[in-house]
Formats: sequence, structure tokens, C-alpha cells
Amino acid sequence: MPGSTFGQIFKITTYGESHGKGIGVVIDGCPAGINITEEDIAIDLDRRRPGQSAIVTQRKESDTPHIMSGVFEGVTTGTPINIFIPNEDQRSKDYSHIKDAFRPSHADFTYQEKYGVRDYRGGGRSSARETAARVAAGVIAKKLLATAGVTITAYVDQVGHIQIPVESYPLDFRLIESNPVRCPDTATAEIMESYIKEVRKDGDTVGGVVSCLITGCPVGLGEPVFDRLHADLGKGMLSINAVKGFQYGSGFRAASMRGSAHNDLFENIGGKISTKTNNSGGIQGGISNGMDIYFSVAFKPVATIVPAQESVDKDGNPAQVEGKGRHDPCVVPRAVPIVEAMAALVLADHFLRARVAKL
Amino acid sequence: MPGSTFGQIFKITTYGESHGKGIGVVIDGCPAGINITEEDIAIDLDRRRPGQSAIVTQRKESDTPHIMSGVFEGVTTGTPINIFIPNEDQRSKDYSHIKDAFRPSHADFTYQEKYGVRDYRGGGRSSARETAARVAAGVIAKKLLATAGVTITAYVDQVGHIQIPVESYPLDFRLIESNPVRCPDTATAEIMESYIKEVRKDGDTVGGVVSCLITGCPVGLGEPVFDRLHADLGKGMLSINAVKGFQYGSGFRAASMRGSAHNDLFENIGGKISTKTNNSGGIQGGISNGMDIYFSVAFKPVATIVPAQESVDKDGNPAQVEGKGRHDPCVVPRAVPIVEAMAALVLADHFLRARVAKL
Amino acid sequence: MPGSTFGQIFKITTYGESHGKGIGVVIDGCPAGINITEEDIAIDLDRRRPGQSAIVTQRKESDTPHIMSGVFEGVTTGTPINIFIPNEDQRSKDYSHIKDAFRPSHADFTYQEKYGVRDYRGGGRSSARETAARVAAGVIAKKLLATAGVTITAYVDQVGHIQIPVESYPLDFRLIESNPVRCPDTATAEIMESYIKEVRKDGDTVGGVVSCLITGCPVGLGEPVFDRLHADLGKGMLSINAVKGFQYGSGFRAASMRGSAHNDLFENIGGKISTKTNNSGGIQGGISNGMDIYFSVAFKPVATIVPAQESVDKDGNPAQVEGKGRHDPCVVPRAVPIVEAMAALVLADHFLRARVAKL
Amino acid sequence: MPGSTFGQIFKITTYGESHGKGIGVVIDGCPAGINITEEDIAIDLDRRRPGQSAIVTQRKESDTPHIMSGVFEGVTTGTPINIFIPNEDQRSKDYSHIKDAFRPSHADFTYQEKYGVRDYRGGGRSSARETAARVAAGVIAKKLLATAGVTITAYVDQVGHIQIPVESYPLDFRLIESNPVRCPDTATAEIMESYIKEVRKDGDTVGGVVSCLITGCPVGLGEPVFDRLHADLGKGMLSINAVKGFQYGSGFRAASMRGSAHNDLFENIGGKISTKTNNSGGIQGGISNGMDIYFSVAFKPVATIVPAQESVDKDGNPAQVEGKGRHDPCVVPRAVPIVEAMAALVLADHFLRARVAKL
Repeated sequence: MPGSTFGQIFKITTYGESHGKGIGVVIDGCPAGINITEEDIAIDLDRRRPGQSAIVTQRKESDTPHIMSGVFEGVTTGTPINIFIPNEDQRSKDYSHIKDAFRPSHADFTYQEKYGVRDYRGGGRSSARETAARVAAGVIAKKLLATAGVTITAYVDQVGHIQIPVESYPLDFRLIESNPVRCPDTATAEIMESYIKEVRKDGDTVGGVVSCLITGCPVGLGEPVFDRLHADLGKGMLSINAVKGFQYGSGFRAASMRGSAHNDLFENIGGKISTKTNNSGGIQGGISNGMDIYFSVAFKPVATIVPAQESVDKDGNPAQVEGKGRHDPCVVPRAVPIVEAMAALVLADHFLRARVAKL
Repeated sequence: MPGSTFGQIFKITTYGESHGKGIGVVIDGCPAGINITEEDIAIDLDRRRPGQSAIVTQRKESDTPHIMSGVFEGVTTGTPINIFIPNEDQRSKDYSHIKDAFRPSHADFTYQEKYGVRDYRGGGRSSARETAARVAAGVIAKKLLATAGVTITAYVDQVGHIQIPVESYPLDFRLIESNPVRCPDTATAEIMESYIKEVRKDGDTVGGVVSCLITGCPVGLGEPVFDRLHADLGKGMLSINAVKGFQYGSGFRAASMRGSAHNDLFENIGGKISTKTNNSGGIQGGISNGMDIYFSVAFKPVATIVPAQESVDKDGNPAQVEGKGRHDPCVVPRAVPIVEAMAALVLADHFLRARVAKL
Repeated sequence: MPGSTFGQIFKITTYGESHGKGIGVVIDGCPAGINITEEDIAIDLDRRRPGQSAIVTQRKESDTPHIMSGVFEGVTTGTPINIFIPNEDQRSKDYSHIKDAFRPSHADFTYQEKYGVRDYRGGGRSSARETAARVAAGVIAKKLLATAGVTITAYVDQVGHIQIPVESYPLDFRLIESNPVRCPDTATAEIMESYIKEVRKDGDTVGGVVSCLITGCPVGLGEPVFDRLHADLGKGMLSINAVKGFQYGSGFRAASMRGSAHNDLFENIGGKISTKTNNSGGIQGGISNGMDIYFSVAFKPVATIVPAQESVDKDGNPAQVEGKGRHDPCVVPRAVPIVEAMAALVLADHFLRARVAKL
Repeated sequence: MPGSTFGQIFKITTYGESHGKGIGVVIDGCPAGINITEEDIAIDLDRRRPGQSAIVTQRKESDTPHIMSGVFEGVTTGTPINIFIPNEDQRSKDYSHIKDAFRPSHADFTYQEKYGVRDYRGGGRSSARETAARVAAGVIAKKLLATAGVTITAYVDQVGHIQIPVESYPLDFRLIESNPVRCPDTATAEIMESYIKEVRKDGDTVGGVVSCLITGCPVGLGEPVFDRLHADLGKGMLSINAVKGFQYGSGFRAASMRGSAHNDLFENIGGKISTKTNNSGGIQGGISNGMDIYFSVAFKPVATIVPAQESVDKDGNPAQVEGKGRHDPCVVPRAVPIVEAMAALVLADHFLRARVAKL
């Protein structure tokens, strides 16, 4: 059953495998009239690209986007936009050892069981390489949202046990791209970077948290009762490889709070109805209320590690698996543009969906 | 834009408001041949029902389900099943004071802005009463899943700052329904119950966490790349009123872990491929792997509190809002069957979707 | 797999069987702000109602619509609208003879084979009674379209071999409701009525054609390449019981024509771009062009006839089936409001879909 | 709003324009385990290809399909299959004259109005070139259906006023590909061919009818009440460029018939329940009954003709349009594989949908 489509109006379908001809996305439902170039798309792809720094995977991919349809003379025409990103540096032989064995905490076993066949090279369709297609689509979603004044900014909030300390707030988002970790608190970023290098030296990996802030979101986005704005944000984030949790606004912290402390009181600030606090995270009843939207996404450590691990093969026989493919010691620095892209895709879709709420 | 439908094959659409004629659900896509009666449905509705104990809202609703279509001689016929639950105890005059004012951290403001009109009585469509329709549909989903040996059990894990202590594990699920809190650790349940009563005495409310365990799930459920099983579980949970966060398997804890500790090694247990640990939470690459699925859901404190709160009215003028309607001091005891229902709806849908994966 | 939902934004789901508690429809995605009452809905239901004249089935159904949700103080709120129409005159024992036998050219056999179980009373879900729910939803769709100046008028064009002669054109639509056949050419209507009575006397039935004209449709409705406006109109019409064919604009006649004769030349009429002829039927490239939309729908003769027919039972044994239930000798007079309703549902959906075509 | 996706489970999304980089299709939901090669796909594309004979457009396109994803070692993997067909012979300058003018009975005007921008070269997205992508996808659908014994055969039934005479029945389908018209009655085919050449000499075009026969369809395909099998076939056909009408089984002829003559009586033929006649066209109540499915599709004459035609430009000023681009004098010979492809896509989708009807 199809599962590679996301969105109702701004609807994307991704395709492609890690070691096939390439990956890509078809966007159907993008309104006509948006200016877009391959160069625009490359900017965010470069932020997600392997090989961008010393703390990410060294696979060499230029990740060059090709707009194959739907754009005429630099403007979207309202027809399906296909963006194709060729694969370049596929060392498929790196993966012959896992043709029959299942890598721990990867999708090898489940794909094999579900489909009876799998492209084992680099994880095939289950590779995080697929997210490049989302980032490409996300750029167009961001362009659409920018026309309404919406900005989306993600950053690394935690790497392993290292978190941005409370005293570093408010954060200066201009510093996010100043370090390879994409943490706006530069002091913490350095500690994170060192830690990632240490983990890599061990042939190991580590998890982390990416947080995201959305400003300028108009009131009224989100479709009760199931397509609540945060429910779709949650689904979008949980659909990213390696994600284990999602919370928005007060999040899990809300469980310990009392209503009298948690409630956001309304006030009128110069004619605009706002709330004094924002535990709601900018969403009430599943609908944006005009305040900042913020949420956090937990990533598990990358499953590929260098040391040999015990496993089994297709026939259930014992097998050892070694981490031969190139991989990231920590996924969160490259996950930042992916989180932004998925947020943009959700928001763009709901931005368009909200157009038909009233007569 | 429609947002009241959930699922692709086992597809439900809920309707109704808190103080209208009633609420209900149409299930389209339920396979023919499932035995179902109104009595079956009433069992879970009774677990969600107001007035069931001293620690929940005292609104009097029998929540009697009426099967209006799709079932013939006690068996589903493959046609749409409409289940209707009449409203009985609507004290709509309780809500006249909020006709024009916005209750803090409710959906009054966002509905008004989005639609330009709203049924303000009891929150109208945004009321958690809508979840009764989900519970009703969930019963049929559970029946479908039971044919495959799947069981779903939710319970209260945390109320305010009170959590089940680690030393109470493993939990005895037979004790969940033995106390009004629905916490399987009876000692903790008592503390939780006292705390909820204390909070209620203050006219206040408190949040909590519901956890859920799914056993017997076949391998192969979940549709990459967007409709990953946990992404749909997450969306389902986040679509429940008052939910602020979702995590599965190792969850947010994974962010601090190393891959070498987090990876679940495969082993062959009597011919069945299993994993030695289960940080994956029974899902790998978005597809169930046959191990237990488990996740947690964070609920914020109920927004309706007794003390007067500052707010604004439709015209932006200051207004005071008092908590006149009946409400729950803590939502999690009644949320337990709702979490189960949404889990069942997700699983039933994916159970059917998985039927078409292979030739 | 669900099949009882129609539309993408103005989305309806019908439910119910011929001899159950009733039938109904949930409309999800109707914009807020439309005035609607049960009386409004009753008007079109009365045009579809059994027992309305001597030439239709004599089943006694008042077909009273009950708005169960989604409307507050006479105005749609943007939430799901459930309209329920109770069944009243179910003579289920009329159908006990077909519990095990398959009526020729009915859906008894296919439902039994597909689902393994069926509500045989009156055809259950396959009964044309289900279309009352569509008519009810269509009233709201018409209300929405009326705000944009769109009018939809269907009429009987052919009964058996009797067709409106060319010399009767242009037709006077005010006469449609002046006769029980719903044919705007009163002379032809009389001949049709006599013919239907003659057919009924034989215990037989006869087919016919309903045509439909839509005026005032804005330019730009229809979503290439699959959801062309006429493709969705065609699907809508073909989903009505007993429909065997659909054509729009020049229709099957176009097959014999040359391009030089068929092409509609553009002209500028007082600033409005129009076409001199309208073989396009108001739709070009699947998108409305502002000219009148017109199409025809062929209905087969009702399958239930009085004389005994040879058939088989569930076990494949020979069986005789007699037409004991009440039925229409000719379905097209009652089909007129159904065709209008389906047209309105398609147009309303595309009217809303077109809102997101451009930035 | 997206409109380039077709199907619920076997779901295709086409993309691309007539004179862009190419056209293509993403198939999401194709089951794993189907053998497929680019050579397989080329066979049907060659039947649709321009330049294949003297009576079709002379645009030179090899229409070479490239499988970009979803197939591993010649077998579908259950992941999205992207098939790309590069454009080769785009003479875009041929179209500069229609940059601002609207060709009569083309989609120039409606696209311009709907989207505010259009790729005018060769009709851009509205070009029938898009159907090559459907043919490519249809090949995989046919492969899937072949595993169940389903065959789909379309042929030219009418060109202009020339129809296959009744005395030529039964038809010998082996002769379809023996002549460039694709008419199985070779005598009629010759007359049709001459007629098409004559029409071409006039710089004119002519319409026609394609009929289609489906054998071996299992009982039970089709999802009441809206997704009736014939309703989806109808929509699929009506979504093909230039189609004006669709009828199945007895079709428009049914309007003149009496029930006693039209009803298909059931009989038991060696344990298989069949019908003595087949006015139902293999579908009852929207569900296949195991008999042959047959239908006809009316095509209008191609809108591009050589003689200059009066029109208007974007500003509403008078403009003359000449038929400079290469085009078909009659579309039906090339439409044969397109009709087959759309039929296969509908059947494949319903074949998979029917898998979840019963417990």
C-alpha cells in the first residue's frame, strides 16, 4: 500500500533508493506563481549533504537537484514538479556483506519480511538518503510560506547528554550555521563537536535532539479533529529516519504541571489577541493561534557502528555484521534542514488547506 | 478542508458536538465478517464515560452506542458502519458566559478565527466528548485485531509529578481496572488518586502520561516512508485532545544514548527472529518487527479550572472567565481507553494495508 | 476497502441500507457560514421521494432529513454535518424470498461473493435508496454554489424510445416540475407518462436519459490531469444506481465529426472571452471555460420486474425470482434530483479546490 | 489542488510537459515481486508512439522508458517506481505563435485563466504526450493482472462515420495490430485508413470510438457506492485527452430497453454462476460478476487543424491561429494502448482493493 506521499494539497511523493540511479520527489498541488530555481534548492541540500564537515559521513555526493517538470521560465505553473537528485558515489560493494544478513536496528529485517525482496545496497529505500528529496521539496514549501511571512528555524538542542543550558537563552539563531553542529550556543556547540569526534573515534554513534521554531504563522492553520496542526507536525517528524519522539509547546513537561500554571492567558496587545505565556506552543485545539510554534524531535543514535555485532541472516543462522559503509557518528547536524523541510511541508499544506475553511 | 477522517482502509469519520444531538462515527472499510454488538461497544465507552468515579467529571452521560448501519444480524457486512451516541446531559446554559469570551488554553479563540462562527456550548466540536466516537470505532478495530492475536493495553504511567517507580516493574496489567486511576501499580495509584482529589479541591487540574503496550503484532505493518507505523501512531495520539508529546521505544531517552548501547541485536529464538533488547519499540524502519510495541503519551492539565482567569472577548476587550462547566481534574484515567482506541485504529488500518505489500 | 466517500474538499460519506434504521451522509469539509435548514433539504428530497406520483414506486417514505451535527443556529460551522433520514416503511418480509436467491441484474450475487454476507432486505446497501443521502448533501452543495451564481438543472430527455424532438428546443426549464416525468417539453412528457403507465401495466420497466445543464460556472474549475472536471462529473454520474453511460458536450456525436466543424472559436463578447459554439460543453482541457456545461446520463431499465424470472440460489441451484417489492417502472423522473445533486457535489468540490491553484 | 494522481492502492502520479525535459510517472503501491524490464514497457509505448505509421503525427520520439527506482534486479520491491521518458524532438519554436493566442478547443485559455501562467510549448502539461506516462504505468498494471488471468484488449471501433458493421462480429482480436488503424475488422480498417488520409489531406482531423474488452476478471472487484468499478473505469477514460463519452455494457442503448429484455438471467454453467446475456457488461451493483467487461470511449477530433482559425489573444484582441505543430489527423489508433493502460490501472487498483473486503 502506498506510503510515500505526504500532504493533502501541497502533496509530495518521494522515490528512489540509496544506491539506485538517484532519488527525487514529485510535488503535486504547488500553487502557480512561485519563483524557484535549482540554485535555491541547492542551498538547503548543501546543509543536508554528506561530506559537508568533519563530523558527518564522508560519502561524496554533490546532491545536485534537477527540476524535471512543473517550472517554466523560473516560475511554478501549478503542475507537478519533479525534482531529481542523481546518486553519484555509490560504493555498492560495501554492502555485499549485508545482502543476506540483517544489520541490528536497521530496516533490513522488516523490509525483507514485508516485501519478500529488498534492495540491500545502503539500505535501499530505507536509507536516510531519501530525506534529501524532502529537503528539496521543503525549499519550495518555504518559498510559499515566505509570501505569508512565515519563518522556520531548526537547530541542534542536544547531542548525547549535552544540552543547551537554560542560561544560554534567548538563543541567537544567526549563529546556527556558524558551527558544524548547527547549535546556536557556540560554547555548547564546541563541546558537542568534541563529543561527536570522540564517539566517532570509538567507531560509535550518538543520538540528539533537534528543536524548531516557527514564527509568523497566521491564525487558523490546522484541521480538527484528526489533522490538528501539531498532529501533522508530529507525523512529519516521526516519519524522518531515526526519530523516536516528538513534543510541542510544554511537551512532556506538561504532564507534571497544574492547569493554573499551564494555561496561557489571552491579552490584547495593540489590537492583536495574544497570550501572555505560550505553553500551547502556538497551537490551540489543533489550530495555530498566531503565537510562535515550537517543538522538539528526539533522534536515536545511528545504527551503523564500526565494531562487529552479532546478528542473524535470512535463514536465521548466526551472522556477524560490521559497519563497513560510511556513516554519520551523529545525525542531528544534518537533520536540522530535514526537520525544517518537514515543518515547511506541513505548514504549506495547512496554509493552503485553511483557504477553504470559510465561505 | 476536511480533517475528521482517519485511516486509509479502516477509515473513520467522526461527527458531532458536545451539546448538539449527539456524536458519532462512520467506519468505512471495515471488512465483512466481524461479530459486533452494541454491548461490545458499550464496554469501552463505559471506561471513557463521565461520572464513572469520584475523580472524573460528573456530567451524566450514559454514552449508549446505537449501531445505525453496516451490521446485519450481528455481523459487519463490509458497508459503512455508523455508530451514534446521543447527548443526554447538556447543560448548555452553563456555557452562555463564554459565548463571546475566550477560555484560556481552549480552542474558543482559534475556532472563532478559523471559521468565523462556532458552537460555543461545551466547546462544541473541540470538546473531548468527540473522543467517545473514537472509542466506539476502536472496539471494532480491536475485534479485527484480535483475530490476529494482537492485544492493546494502555495505563496511567504518571499523574503530575507522580510516576510509577522503576522497582514496580514488571507491571501486572490485571490491576489496571482495579482502581479509578487505571494505574497497574496499586500503591502508586493510591497516591495519584489522593493527589487528583487534592488538585480538584483547589479547583485546579493536573497533567499526566498514558503508556501503551501492544503485543502479538505481526511483522510487516507500516508503510514507508511517510506512513511509518510509529508516525501514524504518533499522529493518532497527538490528535487526542490535550496531548503534548509522543515517544515510542527508547523515546527521548535515545537522544543521550550511544549506538553500541541502543542497537537491538537479532537472535533466533526457536526459529523466530527476535531482538535481545527492544529499544526499537517493536518498529524498525517504520515497520513492525514482531516484538512488543510500546509508547507513551503526555497530556497537559485540563484547561478548565474553577478560579476566574483573565481573558479577552471577541472584540478584544478584557473579560473574566470562570470554570462553570463540569470538567475533569485530571484527564488521564479516562484517556486510557482513548489511547487504546487510537492505537487499535492505527493498527487495524495497517493490518489491512499490509495485505497488499506482496504479489 | 472504503468506497462510500466522494470528493476531496467538499467530502461526503454516505451510510445506511434500504431496510435498516435509516440512511444518511456525513459532509466533512463544508465551509463555515452557509445557511441551511432541514426544510431546505426536504425540498429536493421530496423530488426524489417514493410515492410522489402515480408513475413511481409506492413505497411510503416521508424522507424527513435530520441535521445531527455541524450546523449551529442555522449556519454551517465548518465541522462535519451529519444528515440522517430514518427508514419508515420497510416491508422486509417482502424480501425473504430473495434471502438465498439472486435477482437478475441486481447486486445480490456480487455483494454475496465480495463480502460473504449481505443484508438482502431491499437490496441493503445496494438499494437506490442510498441516493437520498446524496440528494440531501447536494442541497448544501447547491447552496454553496449559489453564492457564486452557479445553477444546476436536470431534466428527463428520453424515456424508452421517446426523446424530446429537436424542434422543441430551446427548452423552457420552468416546465420541468409541471409534470410527473420532469420533462420540460410538456407534449413529450405526456407521451412519456402514458408509456411508463403502459410499461407498468405489463409489470415491466423501461430505461431513459437524464440531461443536465449548468450555468454560471466560473472559469478554472477542474484539476488536470486525472481530476478533469468532466471526469469527476462522469464518475459521479456513473456512481448512481442503474447508470450505463455518460457524455458531455458533443459526446458520442463528436466521434463522427471533423475538427473544423467541432472546434469552438473564441470571441470577445463585451470583454468576456467566450466561444461561438459550445461543443466543448463548457470544459476545455478538463477545466471549465465559463460557458454552459451540459451532459447526459443513460439509465438502464429497473431490474425488478413483476413476472417470474429464472435464476440460481447461493448454492447454484435453479430458483425463480418474482418482483414482490415495490419498485419504479422507470427511474428517470426520480433520478433528476439525484443527477443534480451529484453534479452539485462535483462542482462544489472543484469550486473549493480551485481556490488553491494560484499563489 | 493536486489532480495528477490516480488510484488508491496502485497509485500513479504523472508529471512532465510536452516540451520540457520529459514526462514520467511514479507508481506508489505496486506490490513487490513483479518482474518488469524497460523492454516490457517499451512494447506498449511503441504502440502509442508518434511516427509509428503514416496516419499519425510525425513528431520523432523514441519514447524510451527509464526505470529510475523501485525495481531491483528486474523485480518490483514494493517501493515507488519512477519511470522517466525523455523528450527528444521538441520543436518549441513551432509554438511561439501561440504564446499569447488561444488555440480553439485546446486548453490554452483555461490553463492561462486557472494558473495565471502556462508552459505554452506544445500545450505543456495539457498535451496528450502526458498519456505516455500512463501507458508505461499500465504495463506494470497489466503484469500484475496477468498473474490473475485478466486480459485487456482495446481496438478502434469507429473513425468518423465509419463503424465496424454488425456482420463482422465476432471480432478476431489477433488482427488488431495487423493494420495501422488498430481495427480488428481488416476490411473496415482499410476504409478507415483511407478516410483518415483524406481528412489529413484537407488539413483536418476526425473523431472516433475505441472499444475495450476485459476477460478473466475475478468476481468482486469494485467498491460501492462511489467507487463502483464502472465509475472508476469511466473516470479513467474521461481523464484521457479528447474523450467526450463513456458507456459500458448496454450503454446508451439501455435507455430504450425494457427490463424484461435487459435483465441478465443467472445460470449455473458447470458450477460457475454466469449470466445468459451480458447487458450488465460484467458489472452489477458496481462490482465485477465474472463475465466479460466491455465498454466504449468516444474521442472528439483533434483540435489542431492546418487552416487558420479565428481566435483571441490574452488581452481579448482578435488573433488568428494556424496549426503549425505536428499533430494526428485522428487520435484513436494511438489511443488504443492508452485506453488499455487506463483500464489496467483501474483494474489493478481494484484487484488490490478487493483483497481487504473480507476478514
